[in-house]
Formats: sequence, structure tokens, C-alpha cells
Amino acid sequence: MKSDIDRLMAERDLAALIIPVDEVYSPPLDYLVGRVHITGGLAIKKQGADPVLVVSGMEVQEAEATGLKVYSYAQMDYYDIYKANAHDTTQTAVAFWVHCLEKLDITVGKIGVYGVGRMHRFIALVDRLREAHKQYQFNGEAGRTLFDIAAITKDEAEVARLRDIGTRTSVVQQAAWDFIASHHAQGDTVVDGDGKPLTIGAVKRFIRRTLLDYDLEDTGMIFAQGRDGAFPHSRGQDDMALKQGETIVFDLFPREIGGGYYHDTTRTWSIGYASEDAQRIYQTVMDSFDVAVEAYGLDKPAYLMAEAVLDFFEAQDHPTIRSHPGTETGFVHGLGHGLGVEIHEQPYVSHTYREDRFQVGNVITIEPGLYYPDKAIGARVEDTFVVNPDGTLESITPFHKDLVIPLKST
Amino acid sequence: MKSDIDRLMAERDLAALIIPVDEVYSPPLDYLVGRVHITGGLAIKKQGADPVLVVSGMEVQEAEATGLKVYSYAQMDYYDIYKANAHDTTQTAVAFWVHCLEKLDITVGKIGVYGVGRMHRFIALVDRLREAHKQYQFNGEAGRTLFDIAAITKDEAEVARLRDIGTRTSVVQQAAWDFIASHHAQGDTVVDGDGKPLTIGAVKRFIRRTLLDYDLEDTGMIFAQGRDGAFPHSRGQDDMALKQGETIVFDLFPREIGGGYYHDTTRTWSIGYASEDAQRIYQTVMDSFDVAVEAYGLDKPAYLMAEAVLDFFEAQDHPTIRSHPGTETGFVHGLGHGLGVEIHEQPYVSHTYREDRFQVGNVITIEPGLYYPDKAIGARVEDTFVVNPDGTLESITPFHKDLVIPLKST
Repeated sequence: MKSDIDRLMAERDLAALIIPVDEVYSPPLDYLVGRVHITGGLAIKKQGADPVLVVSGMEVQEAEATGLKVYSYAQMDYYDIYKANAHDTTQTAVAFWVHCLEKLDITVGKIGVYGVGRMHRFIALVDRLREAHKQYQFNGEAGRTLFDIAAITKDEAEVARLRDIGTRTSVVQQAAWDFIASHHAQGDTVVDGDGKPLTIGAVKRFIRRTLLDYDLEDTGMIFAQGRDGAFPHSRGQDDMALKQGETIVFDLFPREIGGGYYHDTTRTWSIGYASEDAQRIYQTVMDSFDVAVEAYGLDKPAYLMAEAVLDFFEAQDHPTIRSHPGTETGFVHGLGHGLGVEIHEQPYVSHTYREDRFQVGNVITIEPGLYYPDKAIGARVEDTFVVNPDGTLESITPFHKDLVIPLKST
Repeated sequence: MKSDIDRLMAERDLAALIIPVDEVYSPPLDYLVGRVHITGGLAIKKQGADPVLVVSGMEVQEAEATGLKVYSYAQMDYYDIYKANAHDTTQTAVAFWVHCLEKLDITVGKIGVYGVGRMHRFIALVDRLREAHKQYQFNGEAGRTLFDIAAITKDEAEVARLRDIGTRTSVVQQAAWDFIASHHAQGDTVVDGDGKPLTIGAVKRFIRRTLLDYDLEDTGMIFAQGRDGAFPHSRGQDDMALKQGETIVFDLFPREIGGGYYHDTTRTWSIGYASEDAQRIYQTVMDSFDVAVEAYGLDKPAYLMAEAVLDFFEAQDHPTIRSHPGTETGFVHGLGHGLGVEIHEQPYVSHTYREDRFQVGNVITIEPGLYYPDKAIGARVEDTFVVNPDGTLESITPFHKDLVIPLKST
């Protein structure tokens, strides 16, 4: 939880952590200071103190909206340092980071460097900082990082926000369903009132626009029909017309506009009718979904939920990543993952990750699937769940799980 | 230019470069291999050879769309390495990177690590790689990097794409203008047919939706009215109603959906009418824009264009970042920048960056502005320009630069 950050810093013996802001959306920044529209500068958190922001004069107003203490570059003597370093931006950054740390009374010790940005720049910058300022130890962190561990449990405000995003996402799923259902068939091709085929590109455009109506933005949805849907990360081909009787994997993982919290949900659809193969495979996936939910228990290791699903699939002779590592048919991916300001967070629900037990405040996905490229069938079902204060597991994706979208009769 | 990458690798003595793919959009990846929807894996380019992609089985199909050689994790023995490293993802990454390099016959030398991702992970990973595999030297790069230098000039295909994005962006600017103009005034408040005030949030939503119709996505537009517009990076307040007679700074910098090339353009608007102060300041900005364009010359240092504008403003007693470093009134930012797969690229058009001369293939912005928070006035005008093969500078932002949006009479 966010309130664990000081403890996690202490465990790592971090005097401070720095998040350099580098033009792109940086989930750790959002997590630490809240949504802020800045494109450069530094967030610095001294152990035991609130974070502060150091930004250019142009971005002071946006930074102050966080309610945190903000220093302008000028207040931190940036322009003098820039001049003293002959306008060399890298040398300036080295000197400026250290100057900011000193002004905040952080004069020695381990400094954690976190955030999303251009890694080449910061790998090189950390090398220079290490060489020039041996009073500090600048470090990155791999594996289960401080931010990963903090984010495993969400606080009440985060859960409320994630629930709301789930509700809005489900409204968009229903809108997409209704949009397709407003079409009819010509042969097996789905067409509009003018007889024009409905393409995946048109459906995606409709969904992206509808997401905006609910203050959400698409981050790369999957809408993959037929054989494409049998490759779990195929996005789908924009120019492909929708066809009756083919499975469609529709994986929607929008986030708040401009960055923020995510939702993650998948439905499998078949328009007009579903083949017997598709019905059978879909039913197996739905059953595996129930197996997963039933395997849940507060304080139970998360990997046991994944194993229950693997057992279930393997008992029916579906290959899995456990029985056939690297398989591209059967159940080919992990069962689920945490999510928050990143789409994939811990806890991972996978037979190979054994670190986590389910606890109050987890927000996770459950997403079993089966993939058979030779049959041109893919099926996946995914809801986002929250572990409530009473220990129950609750889906926060209210949208229904029907397989067949009926078309208009004419 | 893209074709310079091998030469730039040779200058840096790089045996290879690696771009690790880390969930987020990574401009260097897009630049090197073209748009590809993969969320993990590695792009590896050996000096003198085409890049190859190493991705999970789930993403092989998407990766193959690049036309490049693709290896699945299984083909690169990922699952054996993962097991041999007891499912420790960081140790696995260390061993896997080296295994991939060896399989590609890269057994010694300098390896450049590039890309956008979670810097903390890669700072730590590079530390471990350096410790365990001293036959290589893994390095980041700060300052003017290989990718920065390559991107200073665009090839024909890139310019065509950037032109097209400019045309589409201008259509959206016109649509935003028309949308506002379809309203009328009640007192000084802009309202719709039902007398409901038009808010900045509603305008932004309209613009985001319209961008999607042209296969573009917003990346954080500025639509800042009155005093907000006097802070160059204030995004504007969603719940604020539009008012007649206040300056609005509208800075739109969309990119292709899901990542790709950008456009960057700013207009200053005043609805219904413009105050005398606003007209005067706007005219000065427009004149400074002309001063910039006239200061252009092929092979001329880019900083001289910035100095011409600084001279122009200072001669009229406007403070500038040259006369008053760190100033928050007057002309408070650089004059322009390159753009491509990143919104801010080199060449920088600024009096403090003296590296670049204008050359064929540059795609740059020119964006002078004046900011007076005390007067609640901000004004900025920005087009994106290309340096054509014949050496001429041409705006690729066709949208007009009128200040006043007339409203419907009732």
C-alpha cells in the first residue's frame, strides 16, 4: 500500500528516492505524487518526508496542483548550474541532481532511481553520478521493487477508483456489443444498413470513441477474429470484415485519460451463431474461470489458483505452459496479474511465481484461455477482481459473459 | 537518418545495440523496426546487420509483421534458462540476454542499451550484466545519443508520413474552431443552443474524438484560457466555461494511434472579440514568427534563428530566457525543436544549443510566444516545418492563424 513506501525505503536503506520526469507517462510518479501534467524535472522523496517536485517555471502551476511542495528550477539554481557547466545538459543534470539533494538535506547514502523514461539516458547518467559523487550510492532496482511491493495492495481510495473504472469499462463493452448487434448478415459477412461490411477497424474506432465519452483511453485493445484470436497478443486486423460464426477475442484494457489506473477485461464473442467446436471450447474456458474463482481463499498462495486451472485443463488433455513450456496451443499464458497504475502488477497468478498470498486490497485479473490456431479458435474470459476488507473476492467487471451476439434479422 | 545507424554504431564502437521491450511505447523501437505491437522481448541489432526480434510465442505473429527475422522465446531457450535460474526473472534476464547475443554471434564488445522503459529495472540489470559478463561492456548513452543524431534528418518516407499527419491535424484544428463557432454568447459566456455553458472539458473531448476519426490520438493537449494560458505548460481546467474576449492557447501534439510519429501545432484564439492588449501581444507574436521564418537559411546554425527572435522581443522590452534566465513573463521557452517518433527531438532551436545547422530532412517546430500572467494573457503560435530537398523551409501545418473565432449571433 502507498503507506508502506517509507517502510520499504527503510528496508532498502534508501536515504531518498528520485523519479526523474522524462516526457512520458511514468506510473511510479503517478503513484507517488498523484496525476500531474509535467514533462520534466524531478520528484524527490526523502525517507520519512513527503515527496517534493522540482520543475521548470512553465510547469510550476501544474505541479502545485498535487498539493506538494514545489521548487522551480530557478529556485534550485538550475540556470546558474547550466551556465557553469557550459550548457552541457548531461553535466548539468549530474550537478543539478546533487544540488537538489543537498538543498533537501540529503548529503550521503543510498539513492534509489525509479520511473519510466529513456533508459539509455539514465543508465549513463547514473554512471556519471556514481563516478563524480561517491558520497551517494545511486541504484536502480530489479525483481520485486519497492513500487511493485507497495502496489500489491490498494488502499480504499484506489479501490473506489478502480471500481469506478470497471463500471465505465463495462458500459463500453455493452456499447460495443450493441453496436455490432445493430448490424445484420449478408451471407456470413456482417454488414450495415447500406450493405457495407463492418470491419474490425470500424469497431475499434467506435470503442475508442466511446471510451473517451467515459473519460477512458484505449491502450491497444485486442479485437482478433478467427485464427488471429488464437494468438493471445494479436491485436486484430483493421481491414478484416466481421464474419458470423467465428470466435472473436476482445481484450479491453483502458486507463484514465493521459495516464492513471487501468481496468482489464476480456470477452469471447461469436456473431450470429457459434460453431460446435467454439461452444465446447468456450464452455471449457468458462468452467476453468469458475475453477479459478472457487480456488480463491484469503491468505492462500496465489500460485495455487493457477495450478487448479492447469490441473483442470491438463485433465482434459489441453496442453499448458506447465505441461508443455513454450506451447502455442492450449493454455499458453499465466492465469492473471495485479493491476493498478500499471497494466501488469504483482501479485502474478502463475504456477511459477510463488511469492504472494491473496490479501485484502489485492486487485487482480483472472483470465484463463484456450488457443487453437489450427481450428482458428481462440477463447479467453477475463474479469478484474478485488479482495474486499471481509476477505471475499469480487469481480468489478459487471459486463455479462454471453458468447453469441445476435444480429438484426434484416 | 535511419540509414546512418550503422555508421553511428561504428563511431561508438558498438558491437550491437539492444532495445528491451518493456510494456510501454518505446520510440527507439518504433524507429528501428517500425510499428510493432509487442509488450516484451528484445530487439537486437548487430552492427552491419538487420535488427532481429526475440519475443514470446504469443507475440510472434505481431512481430513477424515487421518483416524482420523473429525468434520465439522457446527458440532462444528461454524456458530452459528460466528453469535453470529457479524462475528468478532478473537472473533469467541476465542469462537470456547473453544467450541471445551469443546465438547471434556477438561474443564480445560494447553493447548499447536503448529504449523507453522502467529505468530502475534496467539500471539494476545492467549492473548485474556488467558484473557477470565482463566480455561485454553494456552502456547507456546520454546527451546527443545515436538515436537523437539519426533522427535529426528524416528520410522521404518519414517526411511523407509527417506531412500527412500535419494535414490531418489541421483538419482537426478547423473542426475545433467550427465547433466553438457553432455556439453563441450569453453575456461573455459561450453557451450551446440550450444555454448550457461550453466548457474546456467538452472542447477537449470533442477534439480527442475528432482526432480518432483521423487515426490520431491526443497525447495531452493544452487548451488553456486566460491566466492559465500565461503558463506555457498549463493544460487548462476541464470545468472552466469558455468566455468571450479571453486569450486561449491551444497546443495540439497528437501522434498516430498507439505510438508513432507526431505533429505539433499551437494557435492562440480569442472568442467573439479580442481585447486591445491581446491583439497587440498576438500581433507581436505573429511578427516574431515571421522573424523566425525569415532568419532561416540552409546550413545556417539553428541557434541564430532563436537569437533573431530573442533580439526582436528584447528590442521591444519583453523579458526573455536570455535576458532574464528563468523568467516566467515574456518569452519563457525555447523557439523550437525537432520532432518525429518523439515530441521533442533535435535539432533544438534555442540560443543555448549550438550543435546543429539546418539541413535537408529536418522536421522542426517554430513556436514563439509571450506570457503575461498579470494581464491573464498568453499567446503562442506554432507550426511544424520541413526542410525540403531544395533547401526551402515549408510549413506542414496548413491551418490558418486567425485570432478571433466569431460566434453565432444567436
